[in-house]
Amino acid sequence: MSVTAAQGFTAAGIAAGIKENGNPDLALVVNNGPRLAAAGVFTSNRVKAAPVLWSEQVLKGGQVSAVILNSGGANACTGPKGFQDTHATAEKVADTLGLNAAEVAVASTGLIGLLLPMDKLLPGVETAVGQLSEHGGEKAAIAIKTTDSVHKTAVVTKSDWTVGGMAKGAGMLAPGLATMLVVLTTDADVESDVLDRALRAATRTTFDRVDSDGCMSTNDTVLLLASGASQVTPEYGEFAEAVRAVCDDLGQQLIRDAEGASKDIKVEVVNAASEDEAVEVGRSIARNNLLKCAIHGEDPNWGRVLSAIGTTKAAFEPDQLNVAINGVWVCKNGGVGEDRDKVDMRYREVHIVADLAAGSETATIWTNDLTADYVHENSAYSS
Amino acid sequence: MSVTAAQGFTAAGIAAGIKENGNPDLALVVNNGPRLAAAGVFTSNRVKAAPVLWSEQVLKGGQVSAVILNSGGANACTGPKGFQDTHATAEKVADTLGLNAAEVAVASTGLIGLLLPMDKLLPGVETAVGQLSEHGGEKAAIAIKTTDSVHKTAVVTKSDWTVGGMAKGAGMLAPGLATMLVVLTTDADVESDVLDRALRAATRTTFDRVDSDGCMSTNDTVLLLASGASQVTPEYGEFAEAVRAVCDDLGQQLIRDAEGASKDIKVEVVNAASEDEAVEVGRSIARNNLLKCAIHGEDPNWGRVLSAIGTTKAAFEPDQLNVAINGVWVCKNGGVGEDRDKVDMRYREVHIVADLAAGSETATIWTNDLTADYVHENSAYSS
Repeated sequence: MSVTAAQGFTAAGIAAGIKENGNPDLALVVNNGPRLAAAGVFTSNRVKAAPVLWSEQVLKGGQVSAVILNSGGANACTGPKGFQDTHATAEKVADTLGLNAAEVAVASTGLIGLLLPMDKLLPGVETAVGQLSEHGGEKAAIAIKTTDSVHKTAVVTKSDWTVGGMAKGAGMLAPGLATMLVVLTTDADVESDVLDRALRAATRTTFDRVDSDGCMSTNDTVLLLASGASQVTPEYGEFAEAVRAVCDDLGQQLIRDAEGASKDIKVEVVNAASEDEAVEVGRSIARNNLLKCAIHGEDPNWGRVLSAIGTTKAAFEPDQLNVAINGVWVCKNGGVGEDRDKVDMRYREVHIVADLAAGSETATIWTNDLTADYVHENSAYSS
Repeated sequence: MSVTAAQGFTAAGIAAGIKENGNPDLALVVNNGPRLAAAGVFTSNRVKAAPVLWSEQVLKGGQVSAVILNSGGANACTGPKGFQDTHATAEKVADTLGLNAAEVAVASTGLIGLLLPMDKLLPGVETAVGQLSEHGGEKAAIAIKTTDSVHKTAVVTKSDWTVGGMAKGAGMLAPGLATMLVVLTTDADVESDVLDRALRAATRTTFDRVDSDGCMSTNDTVLLLASGASQVTPEYGEFAEAVRAVCDDLGQQLIRDAEGASKDIKVEVVNAASEDEAVEVGRSIARNNLLKCAIHGEDPNWGRVLSAIGTTKAAFEPDQLNVAINGVWVCKNGGVGEDRDKVDMRYREVHIVADLAAGSETATIWTNDLTADYVHENSAYSS
C-alpha cells in the first residue's frame, strides 16, 4: 500500500517534535530509481506557501529524487525566512542522502503564519533517513495527517507495474485542489512529460472536483514519481486510468473524512451545454450553505438546489430544470415533482442530480453537509 | 416609522392563515398619492419567484398604487399556477380598492416549491383593506417576518419630507440582494426615473453588500414608492442620500438579525485597484466558511483571510498584503505582523481590514460568523 507499493521507493514517517502533542509529523519518500521522473500539480491559490514555491521550481526540472513532507505547520505567509527554511530542509535531505537539493520536493501542512521549528525539523530529517524502508509507506501516510481521523492510502496493481499513493486532507477542501498533500508513486517506466499529462488529466476530474467547504488552501501539492523499476512502459491510456483510479480513491477518502461531516454528497450535473458549465453549476450547488444544512437535516430541499443553480451563468431555462435526490425526481420542469416524502436520506451517501436540459455534458462534484461539528472543529483550530 | 412615516401612505398587517402557526402573514401598503411613482430592484437569481416576475412587469410602468406582501410561502418554483396565483392576488387588491391591477406589486417570502393557500390569502386581502391605516406601518413590518426575530423599520425625516421603510430577511442573505423584502416610501415629489436612480445607487452599496451566508434568494424585492404628498421635490443628492441612509439602516438590521449569528463582521477592503476588485475580495473573505468559523471562535485567524484573498483575480502581490482585525495589524507584508493576542474579539462587532496595497479603491461587505445555531436553524427549516 501507500507510496512503497511500487518498486523502487522507500519511505519513513517519524515524530520530529514539530507537533506539540508528539504525534508523527515528518514523512520522507525516496525514489531509488533507476528513473527519477516526476510531475506535480499545485494549489491555484495566489497566496502560496514557501514549500509550494520551492517545489514548483523543483518540478520544472521533471526529476524528483525525494519528497520531504511535514505536518504541524504550513510554512505559509512566513516571508523570506519561511522560504529559507524550506530551502534548508531540502538541502538537509540532499546532504544526508547524497542527492541534489534541486531534486528534493518539500511539502508542508498545518498552521498558516508560523515559522517551522527548524531545530526539531532538521534533526528529524536524519532520523527519517535512518528509518527509510520499502515498508515505510504506511508510516509516511500517518505522519502527514493533521485533522485527518484516518490516514489515506490507495494502490492499483497491474500484472507487472503498480501505482500507489498517500493523501492527507480533511478541511479547507476545495478545488484548485482540495487542501491536500498527495504523493503518488509508480514503478512504471514513464517519462516526466507523460507523468505530467496523466496527472493533470487525473486531478482535473478527481481532486479538483472535491469541494468539501469551498475553501482553497495555500499548500496543496500532488506529486507523481516514477522509478521505472518495473522496466515496463505501459500504454498511455492504461497508465492514465490507473493514476486516475488512485486519485479518485484518495479523493473519495478525503470526502469521507471531511471535518465534522455526516453526509457525503455527490452532486451530478447532467445535460449541461458544456462541461465547464456543468462544473460551475455543480460547485454552486456544492457550496450552498443552506442546502448543506438541509442535507444535514435529511431534508430533500430542492428549492435550495434551484436557487443555487439560478446564481450561475450556465445555459438553462428555469422551467425546464429537474432535480433528483437519492433517485426521486422531487423537482420536474422547475416545479414540484415526485413526492419528497419518498426520498430516503437516512444513509451517509446522498446523490443529487441536477438536469439542466440544455445539452449533453456532465460533471460530478463531491461535497459534504454543513454541521455543528464542522463549526466546532474550525472555530477551535487555528490554521 | 416604517412605510407609513411618509405622508400619503396607509398600510395594514394581518394574519390571513397562510402561516400554520397563526402569526401575521399578509401586509398591504397603499400609496394614496397624489403621485404614484415607483422604482424596484429585484433578485439577480435566474430562478425567480412568480411575484418577482409579476412585479418586474408592474415596475416597468413606473407606477405602483399598492404592494401586497405575504410571508409563509415564497411562491417560487410553482410553475404557471403560481404565476396565476400572483396575478389573482393583484387583481383581488385592485378590485377591492378600485385600482388597476397592473399597478399592484406583489412580494412573497417563505418556503420554495409550495403553492400559496389562495382560499386563505384572497379573503385576507379584504381583511387587510379593511384595516388600512396611516398608523399601519408597524403591523405591516411584522406581517412580513419569516425567521426574523424582530421586525425591521427605518426612517429619515427632513424638514418637509420623509423616507421610511420596512424590511424582512434573516437567512439566504447574499447579494444581488440579500433575501429580503423591502418597501420604502417617501412623500417627496419625485418622478419614477429619479426614484430608480436613487434606489439603484443606494442598494448597490447597502443591500448588495450584505452577504450573510452567500446564498441568493429567488424572491428578493426592494421597492421605493413616492406619493408626492409633501409637494416638495428635494435636490437629488439630498434625496439619494436619504434613501441610502434608510437602506443602510435596514441592511445593518438584517445583519444583526442573521440566522444563528453571534458576530457581525465588517469586511473592509482598502487600497484595491478598482472598486469591483475590492468587492470581489470582500465577498471572498466574507464567504470563507473556515474564517467565519474562526471568528465565531474569537480566533483572529488572518491566514484564512489571506487564503481567501488568494482565490481572487484582484491585483495584489502576496508579500504586500496587510490585514487588521479589530484594529490590530496581525498580518503585515503577507506575513506575521503585530501580536495576535492583542486582538480583542469579545464583542459582537468584528472589523476586518484587508489592505491590497494595489490602488486606492475601497469597498465594505457585511457578513456574519458561521455557528452551530445557523446549522441547526437551517437543517430544520425547509425553505
